[in-house]
Amino acid sequence: MTFLSKQERIVLAERPHGLVDNQTLRREVCAVSWPPVAPRGGVYVLVRVEYVGVEPAMRGWMSPDMNSYIPPVQLGSVMRAHGVGRVVDVCKSSVAVGGDDECPSLQVGDVVEGMLGMQAYAVLPAGKVSLVRQLPKSMPDRSTLALSVLGITGSTAYFGLFGVGKPVSTDTVLVSAAAGAVGGTVCELAAKVVGCKRVIGIAGGKTKCEMVVRELGASACIDYKGLSERQLHEAIKQYCPDGVDIFFDNVGGITLNAALRSLNRVAVICGAISTYNNTKMEPKDAPSQYMMLLKRRARMEGFVVFDFESEYERARRDLSAWIDQGLIHVREHTIHGLDRAPEALNMLFSGANQGKLIIKVNHDQFARL
Amino acid sequence: MTFLSKQERIVLAERPHGLVDNQTLRREVCAVSWPPVAPRGGVYVLVRVEYVGVEPAMRGWMSPDMNSYIPPVQLGSVMRAHGVGRVVDVCKSSVAVGGDDECPSLQVGDVVEGMLGMQAYAVLPAGKVSLVRQLPKSMPDRSTLALSVLGITGSTAYFGLFGVGKPVSTDTVLVSAAAGAVGGTVCELAAKVVGCKRVIGIAGGKTKCEMVVRELGASACIDYKGLSERQLHEAIKQYCPDGVDIFFDNVGGITLNAALRSLNRVAVICGAISTYNNTKMEPKDAPSQYMMLLKRRARMEGFVVFDFESEYERARRDLSAWIDQGLIHVREHTIHGLDRAPEALNMLFSGANQGKLIIKVNHDQFARL
Repeated sequence: MTFLSKQERIVLAERPHGLVDNQTLRREVCAVSWPPVAPRGGVYVLVRVEYVGVEPAMRGWMSPDMNSYIPPVQLGSVMRAHGVGRVVDVCKSSVAVGGDDECPSLQVGDVVEGMLGMQAYAVLPAGKVSLVRQLPKSMPDRSTLALSVLGITGSTAYFGLFGVGKPVSTDTVLVSAAAGAVGGTVCELAAKVVGCKRVIGIAGGKTKCEMVVRELGASACIDYKGLSERQLHEAIKQYCPDGVDIFFDNVGGITLNAALRSLNRVAVICGAISTYNNTKMEPKDAPSQYMMLLKRRARMEGFVVFDFESEYERARRDLSAWIDQGLIHVREHTIHGLDRAPEALNMLFSGANQGKLIIKVNHDQFARL
Repeated sequence: MTFLSKQERIVLAERPHGLVDNQTLRREVCAVSWPPVAPRGGVYVLVRVEYVGVEPAMRGWMSPDMNSYIPPVQLGSVMRAHGVGRVVDVCKSSVAVGGDDECPSLQVGDVVEGMLGMQAYAVLPAGKVSLVRQLPKSMPDRSTLALSVLGITGSTAYFGLFGVGKPVSTDTVLVSAAAGAVGGTVCELAAKVVGCKRVIGIAGGKTKCEMVVRELGASACIDYKGLSERQLHEAIKQYCPDGVDIFFDNVGGITLNAALRSLNRVAVICGAISTYNNTKMEPKDAPSQYMMLLKRRARMEGFVVFDFESEYERARRDLSAWIDQGLIHVREHTIHGLDRAPEALNMLFSGANQGKLIIKVNHDQFARL
C-alpha cells in the first residue's frame, strides 16, 4: 500500500522567549510519505494521531539547554508530544531490518500511544509506540486516558508521590498546582489511596480551590492569588500546623520558598511552572529558603517520570483500579485543532485549563483542502 | 568541697546583625558557684575548660530563628560552644537524684568534652560531658583533637560525606571551603580513604589551594577569589568533566549555584558560610539553579551532624585509625583568650584561619585579678 495524504503538523520554528506564539510553534501543511525509506530499516507503523497531550514540560523541551533530562526539540522538527492514535498501516522497511523496532503484534486498527508528536499522522518505528492497554473497566473506550491519568500525567503523580515522597498515613502533604492534572491526582492519591493525615492544596481562585477539596479529597486548599510569599507561608503554617512532610511542587518561585519554610522531610521537585516562561531566572524565583533543608534535615529532590518507565505498567494497573473504585477522577480538558497548540500551551501557564489539557486532532479539515 | 573562684565567660548580649563584635559576645567576669543547687538534682561536675571550638554554625545559634535544628542561644546566656576540659570536682546535688545524669565513672582529673560553653569553668550535669577516649596512638595527649578531627568537625565531615553523600570510587567529589576544618577532612576522606576518581576543592587564595592539593589529596583546587559565578562554573566544568557526583557544600551562595549546574547526584548541604552574616538573604545567595535537581534527578539534602550522635564513637574510632595511618591531617589554629571570641568567629567568615579554630582559655589571668 502506498499512502499519500495531506497532513498538518506543528513545527518548532524558533526558540521562544517568554510565552510561545504561532511564530514559535508554526503550523505546516504537508504530505505524508509512506512507506518510509528508513536509514536503519525495521518495522514501521503509520499512525493516524487522534489526540496529543499538552504538558508544561514542553516549554522546557523548546529551550536549547543541553543539560536537561531530554534533548531539546530541534528547530524545524515536529514538536515533541505524547499522543494517542490508530495504526493505519504496518510495513517492513525495504532497507536491512534492525533489531529494536520489531513489533509483530501491532495490527492495523490498534490503538497506540507514544511520542507521536504534534502532527496528524506519525511514521514511527514500531518500537516507539505501545498499545493502549488496561483501560479501566468502567471506561474501556476512552483512549485519552493514555494521555491523562493512565499516561504520563498519572505516572508523574504516582511515581513522584510514591517513588520520591513515600507518604505514610501520618503525613501532611502539600501540593502546588493542586487543581492541575498532575497535582490533582497527587491530592487524590495522598488523600484517598494513602489516607494521609492532611492533604493541603494550593491553587488559583475560589472555584479551583473548592474543587480540590470537594472532588480531590484535600482537607483544605489555599488560594494563592493575591498572596505575598509571607502571606502564603502564613496560610501554609495555619493549615499545616505540624509542618509539611512532603511538598509536591509543580510551581516553584515564591510558592516553593514559602513551603520550604515549613518543610519537614522532602520537597519533590516535579516542575516549576511559574518560571518556565522567564527568559532569565528572577531573584524571587530562586529558593532562598533552601537552608531550611539543613535546619530540618530535609531534602529537595528532582524527579523525572521517564526514569520510572520500566514500571509504567504497574502505575497504570493501580491507577486503573483506583478509577474503577472511584478514588481517582479523570479530569480532561479537550480543545480542538492542532493550530491551537500555542494557545493551549499558554493556558497551562495562565491556569485556564481544568484538568489534563488534550488537543483533538481535526482530520476533517483535510477533506476541504 | 566548696569552690569559689573568679571566672570569665562570654555571654550572648544581643542578637547580631552582620558580623559579631564584643557588644554581641560580651565578656563577663563573675564567680563560679559550686556545689550547684540544681532544680532536678543528680550528679554534677565542675569542669575547668581548657579549649573551646569556634564553628561557623555558632553564627546561626545566635539568631532568633526558632525553626532551626537547635534552639537559639538565649540572650544573657553563656555562648554555646563545644569544649574540652578537666574535671575539678564531682558532686551529688542535695536535691533528689535524677536518673539521666548519673555518671559514676567520672573522676577528678578526667579529661572531658561536651557543650561546655564559652567560659573558664562549667558546671554541668554529668550526662552532658563524656570522657575523651580513643585519641590516636600517635598523639595520645592532644585533647584538642576532641574539638577538631575527633570531635564535631571530623564527625561533620565523616557523616556528611559517608552518611549523606555515600561516595564510591568512581565518583567526582567537589568540596567548597576545602581548606577549612570540615572541608579539608572531607577532601582527605574522599581522596585517600575512599579513593574517589576525582576530588576537587574550592578555596580562597593560592596558598590554601596549594595546601588542598599537596596535603589533602585533592586532584585540583579552584581559587574562587575574583571569580564570577559563571567563571566559577566554567572552572568546575573544566575540572569535573563528567559532572559532580557529590557536592559537599559549606559555602552556599554563588558557589552552590555554580556547582548545581554540574550536579549529577547529591549536594550535601552542610553549611552556607557565605550567607550567615547577611541580615537578609540576597538574591545572589539563593540557589536559582535548583531546577538542575530535576534535570539531573539530583537532590539537595540538608545534614545536621547531631542526628548521628549515636554513631560518634564509630566515627572517632575510624578517624583515629586514619590519623595513625597518615591519611588524615590534624590542622588546628589556636588563639589565646576567650576575650578574642568575636574576632575568632569573624576569622571563619573572612577565611583567616588555617584549620580548626580553637580558643585556648587563659586561666592565668585570674591570678592577676
